[in-house]
Amino acid sequence: MKSLIMIIDGMADRPIPELGNKTPLEIAETPNMDKLAENGINGIMDPIRPGIRVGSDTAHLSILGYDPYKVYTGRGPFEAAGVGVEVKPGDIAFRCNFATQDENGIIIDRRAGRIREKTDRIAETINSMKIEGFEDTKIIFKESTGHRAVLVLRGENLSDKISDADPKQEGKPPKKVKPLEDSPAAKKTAKLLNRLVEKSYQLLKNHPVNLERLKRSETPANIILPRGAGAVPHVTKFEEKYGLKAACIAETGLIKGIGNITGMDVIEVEGATGGIDTNLENMKNAILEAVKGQYDFILVNIDGADEAGHDGDLKGKIEFIEKVDEILEDLMLEDLYFIFTADHSTPITVKDHSGDPVPIVINGPGIRVDKIVSFNEREAANGGLCRIKGSDIMNILLDLMDKTEKFGA
Amino acid sequence: MKSLIMIIDGMADRPIPELGNKTPLEIAETPNMDKLAENGINGIMDPIRPGIRVGSDTAHLSILGYDPYKVYTGRGPFEAAGVGVEVKPGDIAFRCNFATQDENGIIIDRRAGRIREKTDRIAETINSMKIEGFEDTKIIFKESTGHRAVLVLRGENLSDKISDADPKQEGKPPKKVKPLEDSPAAKKTAKLLNRLVEKSYQLLKNHPVNLERLKRSETPANIILPRGAGAVPHVTKFEEKYGLKAACIAETGLIKGIGNITGMDVIEVEGATGGIDTNLENMKNAILEAVKGQYDFILVNIDGADEAGHDGDLKGKIEFIEKVDEILEDLMLEDLYFIFTADHSTPITVKDHSGDPVPIVINGPGIRVDKIVSFNEREAANGGLCRIKGSDIMNILLDLMDKTEKFGA
Repeated sequence: MKSLIMIIDGMADRPIPELGNKTPLEIAETPNMDKLAENGINGIMDPIRPGIRVGSDTAHLSILGYDPYKVYTGRGPFEAAGVGVEVKPGDIAFRCNFATQDENGIIIDRRAGRIREKTDRIAETINSMKIEGFEDTKIIFKESTGHRAVLVLRGENLSDKISDADPKQEGKPPKKVKPLEDSPAAKKTAKLLNRLVEKSYQLLKNHPVNLERLKRSETPANIILPRGAGAVPHVTKFEEKYGLKAACIAETGLIKGIGNITGMDVIEVEGATGGIDTNLENMKNAILEAVKGQYDFILVNIDGADEAGHDGDLKGKIEFIEKVDEILEDLMLEDLYFIFTADHSTPITVKDHSGDPVPIVINGPGIRVDKIVSFNEREAANGGLCRIKGSDIMNILLDLMDKTEKFGA
Repeated sequence: MKSLIMIIDGMADRPIPELGNKTPLEIAETPNMDKLAENGINGIMDPIRPGIRVGSDTAHLSILGYDPYKVYTGRGPFEAAGVGVEVKPGDIAFRCNFATQDENGIIIDRRAGRIREKTDRIAETINSMKIEGFEDTKIIFKESTGHRAVLVLRGENLSDKISDADPKQEGKPPKKVKPLEDSPAAKKTAKLLNRLVEKSYQLLKNHPVNLERLKRSETPANIILPRGAGAVPHVTKFEEKYGLKAACIAETGLIKGIGNITGMDVIEVEGATGGIDTNLENMKNAILEAVKGQYDFILVNIDGADEAGHDGDLKGKIEFIEKVDEILEDLMLEDLYFIFTADHSTPITVKDHSGDPVPIVINGPGIRVDKIVSFNEREAANGGLCRIKGSDIMNILLDLMDKTEKFGA
């Protein structure tokens, strides 16, 4: 038996007055989701606990059976892992912006004109740089999408208990990084980071890519602004934990990072943008290939509904849910446990995540099929699963797959 | 947005054979509770965990997001706070009876003829008394209702690990208080308490109030019998914990004590007796004033249904539930999250609390309104909340009020 957990990011919602107090899932035409509901056992699921407003990262960790209160040290490590940096436990990881500093040391653009091109060449200059007095610390730096990048510090005596360099607003100099606890490691890391920010400007101000940008009257990406320090956690690899060979098919760096840190094979999909314009056909084909291939377990994250929720784009959210529905028909396979759910609600009325539970349905042999025939937030609450937690899902799945040891006699 | 949690103490029940196996809530005419059910999301709630037979105090703590296994050290601290003693963490608090001791040192009435008047004058004599050899310990003593009072010891090296002085039956002398652990603090506190009980008799036997009572052939309140030692816990104030300015509108000392210890403004209501004869109109007006006033959060406890349950008074319980229903109409306000529930079941057939879950309904904007149209124990179990815990409620409420930080990204 194979298993597939398909997480439609932020799909769940609250009743919307202009829809006659229906949710997007209740309004959207979703014959395939309804078929999953009809053939499965349904319920509502709190990613962590009722009312807890989760991020996509903490929700996915919980659903995969990792306690986010133990392994989630911040977004940095997962972002870094998501762009392909092989982070190691103990590394200190940061999210960074390429920014523009003027001659007076003032940040005049926190996103360097929303630079999109040749950031890899700029990143090369920062990656592996050495800082005087801190030669024992390895500096790993890699571009992410747009003006974003990640920084990883590797070495002895480093700490994530330090403040941000990013001033979070323009018209100010970079913030001096300060230790947030009275420890030699925090002091050392803060000092190192201040030098790194300074030195990044020295290395980048006359960088060929920036000279080209200046010629075109574009703001240069001449300084690095790190924020959100997080120590890479010790995480038992998914395969070691469950004995299942796993693939992760995701669009965003954050979820790919979770796949990487938990030791899954992260499968890249062409045209997977993370938006409502993503190529769902390519996603479907990648899923089919993984299910039919060597993997026992496939984690899928599709991000468009969350993006539409954050944007307050009601029409976009409904249409995207309907598009997702279209690819489901081909995924209802024999010999597959198929769990279909969301990681959290991103209500149109909130434009951010909320703590409401999400609907979940499980299809596969031996399931106690219930009476629910449509997939949405309210019907699911009357289903056979009642109300479960994200941390219950792997246990339920492993039991169905007959992969667990009996506890007791 | 404002929020109101209205807890009808002991309202939930079990099916009663003489009602055709209906519960009081199922039999009572409750058009307004049913309207709350119809307009809201319903469920059943275990104050702590399924089957745990809670007190009103531990249930309220759990509902307010405090772990009763950590902060509940006994009834003493909450009773003391409830009568207005400003208890501090580390204080040792006791519930006490005014009792009658004869010349041979035998307790002949544990309630001093159910004394109701001038206990304040007797309390004055005990309050601030000094005991030889224990001059560093501050003694705070205050009358409560009827023959009840509270005692608080404040000072260094005190312990709540001591036994009761109250013999719990008449015809015996006061029990010698013993340390319940082998510590200097427990030994000291036990010794102090034995002296205090002895000295209370010396101070009170010829007290003017008692001489008057003797003239009227009433038994004198000539000795203090402490019981139920509890150390006042460290409790984060409600406003600090949640950022909500809170009021507590309650009838009993126990629940007022919870309001006081968690730093809420405790609002006194004239005619609030805690019985089925309480003035619900005054309670309603106090709630309305608080909701329209400066408070973000109002905790309400109404006690009559619990009293009727303890008394096995079926008719009284049904009628009281109907009276409570009448005040609800005016409380269904705009811009208010209204949570209506009980703290536990007090089944008529049990005459005490039971571990059965209670119905709960939430009204307010953005709620996933379910199909439930009447408010009672059994219908609620089919509602959209499914089954939640008391400790989930503040998380759910804070999320609805948009007062939470996202955990993760």
